[in-house]
Amino acid sequence: MSESRASAAPSEVSQDNAEPEEQIQPVVAVILAAGLGVRFDESNPKQLVQVGGKPIIAWSIDAFQFNARVTDILVVVNDRVREAVEAIVGDDTYDKVRTVIQGGIERMDSTEAALQTLAEAEIPQDAKLLIHDAVRPFVSQESINGCIDALDTFNAATVAVASTDTMLMAGDLGERKVVRQVPDRDNMFRAQTPQAFRFGTLRKAYDLAAADPDFHPTDDTRVVVDRLPEEPVAIVAGSVTNMKITLPSDVPMAEWIARSLAG
Amino acid sequence: MSESRASAAPSEVSQDNAEPEEQIQPVVAVILAAGLGVRFDESNPKQLVQVGGKPIIAWSIDAFQFNARVTDILVVVNDRVREAVEAIVGDDTYDKVRTVIQGGIERMDSTEAALQTLAEAEIPQDAKLLIHDAVRPFVSQESINGCIDALDTFNAATVAVASTDTMLMAGDLGERKVVRQVPDRDNMFRAQTPQAFRFGTLRKAYDLAAADPDFHPTDDTRVVVDRLPEEPVAIVAGSVTNMKITLPSDVPMAEWIARSLAG
Repeated sequence: MSESRASAAPSEVSQDNAEPEEQIQPVVAVILAAGLGVRFDESNPKQLVQVGGKPIIAWSIDAFQFNARVTDILVVVNDRVREAVEAIVGDDTYDKVRTVIQGGIERMDSTEAALQTLAEAEIPQDAKLLIHDAVRPFVSQESINGCIDALDTFNAATVAVASTDTMLMAGDLGERKVVRQVPDRDNMFRAQTPQAFRFGTLRKAYDLAAADPDFHPTDDTRVVVDRLPEEPVAIVAGSVTNMKITLPSDVPMAEWIARSLAG
Repeated sequence: MSESRASAAPSEVSQDNAEPEEQIQPVVAVILAAGLGVRFDESNPKQLVQVGGKPIIAWSIDAFQFNARVTDILVVVNDRVREAVEAIVGDDTYDKVRTVIQGGIERMDSTEAALQTLAEAEIPQDAKLLIHDAVRPFVSQESINGCIDALDTFNAATVAVASTDTMLMAGDLGERKVVRQVPDRDNMFRAQTPQAFRFGTLRKAYDLAAADPDFHPTDDTRVVVDRLPEEPVAIVAGSVTNMKITLPSDVPMAEWIARSLAG
């Protein structure tokens, strides 16, 4: 573990001794694949399900491996998928994958583990991180590039798509969910990934959140919005094909998108 | 116009002279097909696009025509689709379609027109209304029945699906959308249709809303939640296949769902 963490150093240069102009700023993709998929099928990890002829996680890693601006990839797994993921990234194709680390029970724990690894690798505070859900296999290069560009102006950005549905904020009434509020649709976006941050910004937000054991955000943007409210999070255009595979019933649609992309 | 409105009377009985036990309570489906589809293709009304071998609006009307509990159907159109819709519902199959009326520029105007027609037809205050977007062709019978059942306990209900995506509430920062708030995902639902109401409840909410020219809700649930906040709106389970056709890029997915349903 310590050996693989050491190899996570994204570049040979350090912040102190390189000319800023010559330094290649790390752009690190963190692929989160430690989810248990309780809404999917716990005996069949969704990260590893084949669509369009390859495992879902291979699609996700490919998107960053083949983006010329991404310098390094870190994959976060759990024990159930570790062996399979290591076999996949063991292929010579994946020469940007620096390490495969252990995640945690919640999404936040997995991001925290990645931040810890990156801190130990002494990546610069202004390194660009792209945190991506392994189960969004069809992220576009436009969205990845949009995130990298947005971090030139903002310290945080997220891929999202405008909601074509009106959203309802619900609450409980006895056994039943009832509608409490209906926000304006024009300002409602469906968060996707990658979510992008300057390393120092996300680290700071997570450090502030660590003090609150009752905080269980479902994405990293939430951590920044809640803990660093003065920090604007830019929205980068996503796409409806950048779907998240959550339920077994999502797989046929994923197959269909995989075929469309191949065609 | 006045003639077709008169024929909208959903049943021969009135509230005053029938035994409650013997009265067939009207269950009226209102199909909203007056949208201009500005995000689709204004020269090719999305309501009339063929998927799986029939126009989208025919799928929507079929769902209510073939539900045994629905007693009456009212279709709301604009001038561009009126002729085509009248040709479709002219078929003997559609014996529950009482009238095709003119809608308005905004969704709210179309619902308002339907309420006016139903008031003139003197439907009882406790009649059940199911307001459905014509461009959601694949609504399930389970969702329609769920709405009809929910109105036995509640005066308002809406079909919705739990959001698998984290939702972002955004605002403007210069030219750019930025994230303002990230609500808890567990309580976020994507509104679908039908949205169901006791006639008197929706009428009252619309009467209250009429006083406010700046109120432009994108669904009917919003009108009730905002104007009758003491009235709980029950959530009825929808499905991911109950998609709304908004963009031309939604059509291939609709074709795919149509094929799945046929298979």
